[in-house]
Amino acid sequence: MAKVIAGMTISLDGFIADERGDHGMLYSDFEELDGPYLDEVREVTGAALMGRTTFDGAEDPDGYADGYEFQVPIVVLTHDPPAVEPKRNDRLFFSFVTAGVEAAVARAAELAGDRAVTVIGGADLNQQLLAAGLVDELWVDVMPVLLGDGLRLFERAPRLALEKLGVVDMGARTSLRFRVLRPG
Amino acid sequence: MAKVIAGMTISLDGFIADERGDHGMLYSDFEELDGPYLDEVREVTGAALMGRTTFDGAEDPDGYADGYEFQVPIVVLTHDPPAVEPKRNDRLFFSFVTAGVEAAVARAAELAGDRAVTVIGGADLNQQLLAAGLVDELWVDVMPVLLGDGLRLFERAPRLALEKLGVVDMGARTSLRFRVLRPG
Repeated sequence: MAKVIAGMTISLDGFIADERGDHGMLYSDFEELDGPYLDEVREVTGAALMGRTTFDGAEDPDGYADGYEFQVPIVVLTHDPPAVEPKRNDRLFFSFVTAGVEAAVARAAELAGDRAVTVIGGADLNQQLLAAGLVDELWVDVMPVLLGDGLRLFERAPRLALEKLGVVDMGARTSLRFRVLRPG
Repeated sequence: MAKVIAGMTISLDGFIADERGDHGMLYSDFEELDGPYLDEVREVTGAALMGRTTFDGAEDPDGYADGYEFQVPIVVLTHDPPAVEPKRNDRLFFSFVTAGVEAAVARAAELAGDRAVTVIGGADLNQQLLAAGLVDELWVDVMPVLLGDGLRLFERAPRLALEKLGVVDMGARTSLRFRVLRPG
């Protein structure tokens, strides 16, 4: 089955957004090497998995088909699918899954083929996946900022040993990559 | 004035110890490259700064002079200095400072000479130093484990931009190093 890569970009103090839900402080003022970074993530990604809040973060859901950085099938875990299906193209289309996090992963794995399921966000989905033992790898990118408060990527995660796969040091961003070693 | 290097070793989810105060999970099961790692930290360290709980973490305070990994002057911030001064040697002796965090840093800087003041712990001292704007660099070492709960290194830190100085990837340990950019 396709492996599931969870994780997000965080501040050094562990937040994915500040207390106003603003992600901007994570990226502002830093030289971003998004090109090579995204190329690598895109290369391994066969399907994207996101929560409903992340999906709703787009101003216009039709915009995903027009220019989203991952042009792959996107699975959205939600209690309440949108009435109108967003625009699709040859590579990108949406599956809204209401049957829970395991069903969402199963659907995404089906769509990912021999590539990975990449978890786009948010924090809540990452936490659900970790709690359910559905995460194979964690890719956590640390940005050089302290936010002080906000939404944490990790809240009461299960106690898990990890195996470090590597560190990618690219400009302001440091990408830490781990394999999840499930407790025996 | 000697620069102040704060920071500690944390789990990927940001804890310096689990909910029982146990640091062991951060290190167990990992290949530790403590030799080269400590050599580097020792080389830059002119004086060590610690909180009282960290000082009390030693089974026997006389043991510091006999074999502590930092054989430099040690400043302890405390409300209540011990009645008996611990054993000292030619390089290592204690200064117990009760006049607050700024006084403790000033004393440590005096003792550090042209090398740095290295903050040994704990979380509370790190937080006080950050809040007071007394930190020049943050060296945060991430270990490959999720603890789920415990004592966080960063709790309501001031909002600060950092400049990444570098990443040292040594075995299980990833040392992230930043300069603190004080808000203008």
